[in-house]
Amino acid sequence: MAAIPDTARALISEGRLAHLVTVNADGSPQVSIVWVGLDGDELVSGHLHESLKVKNLRRDPRAVISMEAETIAPNGLQHHLIARCTARVTEGGAAQLLQELAHVYLGPDVMFPPIDDPPPGFVLRYTVDRISGVGPWTS
Amino acid sequence: MAAIPDTARALISEGRLAHLVTVNADGSPQVSIVWVGLDGDELVSGHLHESLKVKNLRRDPRAVISMEAETIAPNGLQHHLIARCTARVTEGGAAQLLQELAHVYLGPDVMFPPIDDPPPGFVLRYTVDRISGVGPWTS
Repeated sequence: MAAIPDTARALISEGRLAHLVTVNADGSPQVSIVWVGLDGDELVSGHLHESLKVKNLRRDPRAVISMEAETIAPNGLQHHLIARCTARVTEGGAAQLLQELAHVYLGPDVMFPPIDDPPPGFVLRYTVDRISGVGPWTS
Repeated sequence: MAAIPDTARALISEGRLAHLVTVNADGSPQVSIVWVGLDGDELVSGHLHESLKVKNLRRDPRAVISMEAETIAPNGLQHHLIARCTARVTEGGAAQLLQELAHVYLGPDVMFPPIDDPPPGFVLRYTVDRISGVGPWTS
């Protein structure tokens, strides 16, 4: 497990889309756009249903999460972060996590998921194996 | 091959980062941030060296390109486009393509690559098999 630099923690916590990459059963790549947050040294995402990405990560825990920053490097390149991760699937807690993340991603007054009695769902937890990209987190 | 809607063509042409996903030899996912443009019905990216993504796509042409848009859906979700593609590697032409893309991504006066006598490099060409995500390109 690699330590997550404070600069990366800030980016991960500020409500930027996460491009989550998993591997399909046929070996092809799968990309889902998800909300992420931090829980200690793990990234976390919440999912109400056992969607393809959840099934993929049960079978093969290798994941990559890439995110864009708004800042620009001196050479003009937009900062971005690429985190190679190992994921695990935990049961329940999805609605609570999604509500917390909705406050970051959508706004302080948003109710999400916008349904009564959401299913327990799944929380994906990612430990970071390596961080790359362009930005203060790689220097 | 799927047709690329005009709304998607506009997004692909406006200088947004492309998250390019390929598959490593060990089956794990690989993400690179690249510049992309359109050449007819293909997406294109230029690479001066035979980097890991080029080698990966020679071995396994399955790629995904995901991009964020600046616009927001009525439910508050940020628009994004996910294109499942089949890629092919062509020899040469990288510097010319990178110079064209640098005018979109960096500015009209930028010289890129910033070196004399760049190598011929490689152009990756992607045909789109399916477009998903959230945005006018999926409706």
